[in-house]
Amino acid sequence: LTLIVAFDRSSSKDGKEVIGTISKICNMVSGVKLGIPLFAKHGATIAREVREVCRNNMIIADLKLADIGDIMISTAEVLLPHVDAFIAHSFIGREGALDDLKSYLDSRGSKLILVASMSHKGSTEVYDKEIDSIASVIKGINPWGIVAPATRPEVIGRLRESLGKEIKILSPGVGVQGAKPGVALCNGADFEIVGRYITNSSNPVETTKLIIYEQKRRLDKCRR
Amino acid sequence: LTLIVAFDRSSSKDGKEVIGTISKICNMVSGVKLGIPLFAKHGATIAREVREVCRNNMIIADLKLADIGDIMISTAEVLLPHVDAFIAHSFIGREGALDDLKSYLDSRGSKLILVASMSHKGSTEVYDKEIDSIASVIKGINPWGIVAPATRPEVIGRLRESLGKEIKILSPGVGVQGAKPGVALCNGADFEIVGRYITNSSNPVETTKLIIYEQKRRLDKCRR
Repeated sequence: LTLIVAFDRSSSKDGKEVIGTISKICNMVSGVKLGIPLFAKHGATIAREVREVCRNNMIIADLKLADIGDIMISTAEVLLPHVDAFIAHSFIGREGALDDLKSYLDSRGSKLILVASMSHKGSTEVYDKEIDSIASVIKGINPWGIVAPATRPEVIGRLRESLGKEIKILSPGVGVQGAKPGVALCNGADFEIVGRYITNSSNPVETTKLIIYEQKRRLDKCRR
Repeated sequence: LTLIVAFDRSSSKDGKEVIGTISKICNMVSGVKLGIPLFAKHGATIAREVREVCRNNMIIADLKLADIGDIMISTAEVLLPHVDAFIAHSFIGREGALDDLKSYLDSRGSKLILVASMSHKGSTEVYDKEIDSIASVIKGINPWGIVAPATRPEVIGRLRESLGKEIKILSPGVGVQGAKPGVALCNGADFEIVGRYITNSSNPVETTKLIIYEQKRRLDKCRR
């Protein structure tokens, strides 16, 4: 399984329609990623309810944590009972930030995923200029995985080469943001993350199936 | 008024003790900053309740937003009814990120505050290497304010010089993180942000008074 579905927003007061959709999809995918707008609206409740309907999936809290260690640990503490992994930015550095978060998550058996580069164009304005410092932060922290954009597959290749085979690479930007399913996988990613293309679809289950099919088709080609 | 109090965590299920403390302090301070752990636990509810007890304060949602524009806008949308300002990271760049967020917040009469540098040591590992690119992102976006660390007052001075007098500078790191009250103000900041030193105090009201007194005392000295 190489697909992670991103849920970022809800239209109802209690988010029940999100839980409904997730419950239909989670047996088809590897993981479920929950975005900041959902937490800003529903707090920990939404993660608890997703856990209840997707017991066997990796649930990722994508708060894009980028604060001092103390605050990131307090955030993780709140969500640890419901999620398996946390996404944080590598840009904030180690001392007093990612070092603390990593130790804390390790001690609780939870996973850390670090953003290495982002899928929007502005990522090149500052973030990608520091790709070497960022690779060095990532090597020092040794997280379970990193996030690198499907929209710029050459960045994935570069990070895979620099970081080795053990680390998991998760690639957002597939679908609405323009990357085709399978392209990131062909360039060295382990998982592709799809959000709006599935969540805004009139038939999320069929759209999920279609993406999985497209991923396999492209992978078969590039691995030939 | 030059003090902003940061509330980052709650110990009770509904966060009522946080609301209780805030309600005693808000008439003494300029603003209230709410941190990620509170939103991760309580969602929008906590901001709505703070708004109810502090009608005349600037309420800041400090989610340290660092995502693509689409996600940051959806986050702001959820909290706009309850807060006056949003903190986002400048390192994510403009195109497809801060440009979008700024336009959206402008159209809703809400304030944007950009992190320019952070208070922990790791900020020097990547963030502060790009201080020139970051100053250029900030100039391009022209936010209401920026965040720069009281723990490294020379960074405040440098940013004040580069960005001019109009922009507000908010400085965290006062108290538990080591900076003395008033030092950031003496170096060009408009507001100092104090969190744990007040929120962990056995008497938050008295501690707030003490900090305000210390700020004035130091400011009187440095302005002489």
